[in-house]
Amino acid sequence: MNRVCNIFNIKYPIVQGGMVWCSGWRLASAVSNAGGLGVIGAGSMHPEVFREHIIKCKKATNKPFGVNLPLLYPQMEEMINIIIEEEVKIVITSAGNPAKYTSFFKEKGITVVHVIANSKFALKAEQAGVDAIVAEGFEAGGHNGREETTTIALIPMIKDIVKVPVIAAGGIANGNQMAAAMALGADGVQVGSKFAITEESSAHSDYKQCIVNCKDGDTILTLKSVVPVRLVKNDFCNRVEKMIQEGNSVEELREELGRGRAKRGIFEGDLSEGEVEIGQVSAMINSIEKAEDVVHNMINEYNTSINSLKEL
Amino acid sequence: MNRVCNIFNIKYPIVQGGMVWCSGWRLASAVSNAGGLGVIGAGSMHPEVFREHIIKCKKATNKPFGVNLPLLYPQMEEMINIIIEEEVKIVITSAGNPAKYTSFFKEKGITVVHVIANSKFALKAEQAGVDAIVAEGFEAGGHNGREETTTIALIPMIKDIVKVPVIAAGGIANGNQMAAAMALGADGVQVGSKFAITEESSAHSDYKQCIVNCKDGDTILTLKSVVPVRLVKNDFCNRVEKMIQEGNSVEELREELGRGRAKRGIFEGDLSEGEVEIGQVSAMINSIEKAEDVVHNMINEYNTSINSLKEL
Repeated sequence: MNRVCNIFNIKYPIVQGGMVWCSGWRLASAVSNAGGLGVIGAGSMHPEVFREHIIKCKKATNKPFGVNLPLLYPQMEEMINIIIEEEVKIVITSAGNPAKYTSFFKEKGITVVHVIANSKFALKAEQAGVDAIVAEGFEAGGHNGREETTTIALIPMIKDIVKVPVIAAGGIANGNQMAAAMALGADGVQVGSKFAITEESSAHSDYKQCIVNCKDGDTILTLKSVVPVRLVKNDFCNRVEKMIQEGNSVEELREELGRGRAKRGIFEGDLSEGEVEIGQVSAMINSIEKAEDVVHNMINEYNTSINSLKEL
Repeated sequence: MNRVCNIFNIKYPIVQGGMVWCSGWRLASAVSNAGGLGVIGAGSMHPEVFREHIIKCKKATNKPFGVNLPLLYPQMEEMINIIIEEEVKIVITSAGNPAKYTSFFKEKGITVVHVIANSKFALKAEQAGVDAIVAEGFEAGGHNGREETTTIALIPMIKDIVKVPVIAAGGIANGNQMAAAMALGADGVQVGSKFAITEESSAHSDYKQCIVNCKDGDTILTLKSVVPVRLVKNDFCNRVEKMIQEGNSVEELREELGRGRAKRGIFEGDLSEGEVEIGQVSAMINSIEKAEDVVHNMINEYNTSINSLKEL
């Protein structure tokens, strides 16, 4: 039996990334109903909106689902109270110190997973008592590690040093890539970009169409001195890249970034001035599908892929 | 039968990267004798040294081997004459336009492979008539593509658009990673870093020890405005990164780089002021082995890996 399926009590070891402005109750419940783990992305939600999404998700599926909580979220206490009150069973934490909340959640009987991008934080997360780790490579969309370690280099390294299950993230949009991740030693996969443009994603339709049109080389990991983030190279992104080349300071970059750019790009569909967060796999994502089809196609492709591998 | 094995007439679809200052006749013949494709790296050789390495390689193995020829090499004509005169059967070209020499080599009965890092050049290489493509991801050591596309994102994209066999490069140092590459659709793999520090590599012993000591995050793709290259973060590299952050011009960076830094780092073992080229997998390479053992261990691990993948 697959360890990731065991931990979450799900059918397929496919976790949907809890992405800002994409992952509301519609997407999360659709993925869970299809046999994966749907995840509500709390990062872009006010506390009461977050609560509403949890309540709606519970109504829309009787399967397990999780929430993704960035540990730098400003109203942390309110979010934690909502998680407890609404009896959320699975919490995926990211962007912060896993030592801070893991044992608290564990004491409440919650399954805790932490997202890492290097070996130091993988060990830290395991020591904090997490049930599993999401190891995310450089090719992933949105916020990302400073080491720039890619999935194929990262997963075997993390598997070598931790005992808990490792969920590979970054560059996984089809069954061949899922098979690759499993060959690297991953116990499951987290899929972001491919779910970000499903029918059930809350993202703006112009954002989804932009991703469909993306070709290779259309994204870049930028703003490394502020917080590294992978974006589509649009007017905003190109302007920031030019500022970086010209030696602008972290403060100047932060000011140019301002607030609300991810909402503008993903939710409001401002393709020139918003942050259009997406992974490198955007180059091979050419259609907007139902989340359920994404899960089932990925599993079918995965099975075909592993059966086609021949001994040497 | 594996397509890469067919094209080169070799036992295992493992191609040794033709790396500057590492890949002389000793390494190439050892890899070929072990059943892979050994490759002499012409990029760091004067023409007559190159000829000597070919002659010695032919004496050291009766198996097929190739040469890697960067198309920006200054004395191109002399090198091509040597390849013809010494009856080299396999040429892997890189860093330049594949349309320039492919048909010439093909007319001489030579098998031609071209190294690419994006879909545009993959199509260009196929149109030029190459027999196979090496598709190299961002995680690879040394010179690298500007798009920064990683192996897991690159390989399925390239497989989708070309018919010729695709050899995956970047992030492949063990059999699990080889299995991952094959799951992505690759027909074979090119292995650089792991061979760069074998006993038979011409690299300096201090360079090899430095790679053994590398941890994750110890390399960076730098000098993007000049020619992108992945290096160990040493004094030289950190100084250049600081210059980039301060907005120095391409000319200033080129001047700081100067000439001969790769030789200094790899061949002379100057670990602070040389270019110490290596891939991200340096973090998981912990021993100096015989090239033969690298090949055989990789194949054994590959077989174990694919047999451990379970249907879902």
